[in-house]
Amino acid sequence: MLTIGIDLGGTSLRVGIFDSDMAVLESHTVRTRVEDGPDAVIEDMAMCVRKLLAGPERTTNVLGIGVGSPGPLHLQDGKLGQLPNFPGWDGFPLRDSLSAATHLPVFLEKDANAAAVAEWKKGAGSTADLDSLAMITLGTGVGTGLILNGQVWHGMVGMGGELGHVSLDRQGPLCGCGARGCLEQYASANGLLRIAREHAESAAASDGLKRLVGKAEGFTPRDVAALADAGDAAALDCFRELGGFLGFGLAGFINVLDLPLIVIGGGVASAWHLFQAAMFEAIRDNSIVYRLGEPSQRDSLEKDRTFIRPAELGPSAGLLGAALLPCLHSVSIDSDGLVSA
Amino acid sequence: MLTIGIDLGGTSLRVGIFDSDMAVLESHTVRTRVEDGPDAVIEDMAMCVRKLLAGPERTTNVLGIGVGSPGPLHLQDGKLGQLPNFPGWDGFPLRDSLSAATHLPVFLEKDANAAAVAEWKKGAGSTADLDSLAMITLGTGVGTGLILNGQVWHGMVGMGGELGHVSLDRQGPLCGCGARGCLEQYASANGLLRIAREHAESAAASDGLKRLVGKAEGFTPRDVAALADAGDAAALDCFRELGGFLGFGLAGFINVLDLPLIVIGGGVASAWHLFQAAMFEAIRDNSIVYRLGEPSQRDSLEKDRTFIRPAELGPSAGLLGAALLPCLHSVSIDSDGLVSA
Repeated sequence: MLTIGIDLGGTSLRVGIFDSDMAVLESHTVRTRVEDGPDAVIEDMAMCVRKLLAGPERTTNVLGIGVGSPGPLHLQDGKLGQLPNFPGWDGFPLRDSLSAATHLPVFLEKDANAAAVAEWKKGAGSTADLDSLAMITLGTGVGTGLILNGQVWHGMVGMGGELGHVSLDRQGPLCGCGARGCLEQYASANGLLRIAREHAESAAASDGLKRLVGKAEGFTPRDVAALADAGDAAALDCFRELGGFLGFGLAGFINVLDLPLIVIGGGVASAWHLFQAAMFEAIRDNSIVYRLGEPSQRDSLEKDRTFIRPAELGPSAGLLGAALLPCLHSVSIDSDGLVSA
Repeated sequence: MLTIGIDLGGTSLRVGIFDSDMAVLESHTVRTRVEDGPDAVIEDMAMCVRKLLAGPERTTNVLGIGVGSPGPLHLQDGKLGQLPNFPGWDGFPLRDSLSAATHLPVFLEKDANAAAVAEWKKGAGSTADLDSLAMITLGTGVGTGLILNGQVWHGMVGMGGELGHVSLDRQGPLCGCGARGCLEQYASANGLLRIAREHAESAAASDGLKRLVGKAEGFTPRDVAALADAGDAAALDCFRELGGFLGFGLAGFINVLDLPLIVIGGGVASAWHLFQAAMFEAIRDNSIVYRLGEPSQRDSLEKDRTFIRPAELGPSAGLLGAALLPCLHSVSIDSDGLVSA
């Protein structure tokens, strides 16, 4: 049994076909033609799917297509909500359009939930028999995927799990969502750049950080990390601030849900060694629930402890998670004895 | 089929027997002899149960006993954790001891979860076919009960759902849990008293509030509410501050979980009319998820909206919810075809 995953991003569209062990057999990446409108992008998706199905040994049945899409989504009718990077696509019936174009069942999820499914089944959560976890993706913004009691959690408006927009400081920097001091203002790529700029303005900032921030061609989170890795005190402070706010946000999250596993992914998570100490300190200081259940041995997942770990799958989590969606669905149907996957 | 509920509090112990419509047939309240140790209190519980079972028309089967207890609890083995108001009871096997003393199956839950079950099945949530909700109890402290996908949510250490200890201000007042600025420091009875004392110290405070706070015999949340109801500006401000922090905390909670219903109960919730405007304003300002799903008609529950409502059952929710626990359990067994309730 084969399964197809589609990772719909604002820049690129990735489509891959996976075997029953979830090994990728073939994948294609094309530019997302956002400006040409949703029908053009559906055509691209269908073209990629046709190519994948024409490959060798693709004669067995295909379970379906899973799509990870930016949110918010109207999941009940498979339509897009108001996606910030897809102007004019509001209300587009992605699920039914793609299904009509490919003659395959389509399963739609928020991209952050697809990534969480991948880490759950094949990544940081796969060594234990967990039925709940969260995946926090520290990318350009902050994404949150939630698995509760073995099911992807959607909330009422398809936006359940927006930890990135939990405000941590009512006097903090203004966020695009309208609130101030959201986690995303500190613990994302953009948040780190903002912190670095703010620190560079301080008289005590190192020359290295001032030079970096002042560069005419701009700078990246990777540049700040390189500076910190070289021992620059001001750059190290930037990551400590990021870790402190991330930990403070996670502390509240742990107090509310007390999950067995929180996976931290996304590009910023590659600086784990630079922010993890400040993150764990803030979690311990602010979460009585974490302290009660603090893991004694950090290297073995247990069901009665809250573990916080870096993601294992990297940027491929989105595509793999999307491809897992048809399997999840067929398993849940399975338990009612209706369909066998 | 009858069911028995026990509401174990630090001051009093309530035991009641309910018919299959969840009408209370008889109940007893005795002082909780915390100082005599857990075995004495089990004796009192068993004595109350025997009295209830000796009443008229009690010949039909009893489904079991549900107990709502302060947390934290070790739910898997039915033992108590370190309960702040029960010194020396740590690790007591409440479930098995009570079951041995009564020869009935015992179902244990955190008291806040029992109250949430009551509002779900028989209170503010009972008019809609909801399978998820939260109940926030604004009492001496702040309790949180969570129902997710039709199941009581426990978290890993039996403390899942401690919204009261989510910090809202890292520079806020120190909380007993070790963090600063927890919701409980603002939106509980003790929090309101703290706010009133703080406001009374301001030069701009009304004479009425200063007099109240200065009373040798102390003052209660009810006194502050009476002053506010009489139009005292400083007392009204106290409730506005409470509502603002409560709304700010709920905004983060809604962003994370996006539940269809949040029920606000406990003694402080009787001042709903004094804090609700500030609460809803803070929720709207700080939760993009709430704004996306804001109910258009406040008087009808819908599954795709987040409603926030005062509790309907009052202080009886704890006992009723405890009595519902054996029913919940038997229903879940039912679906596997093993036991019929």
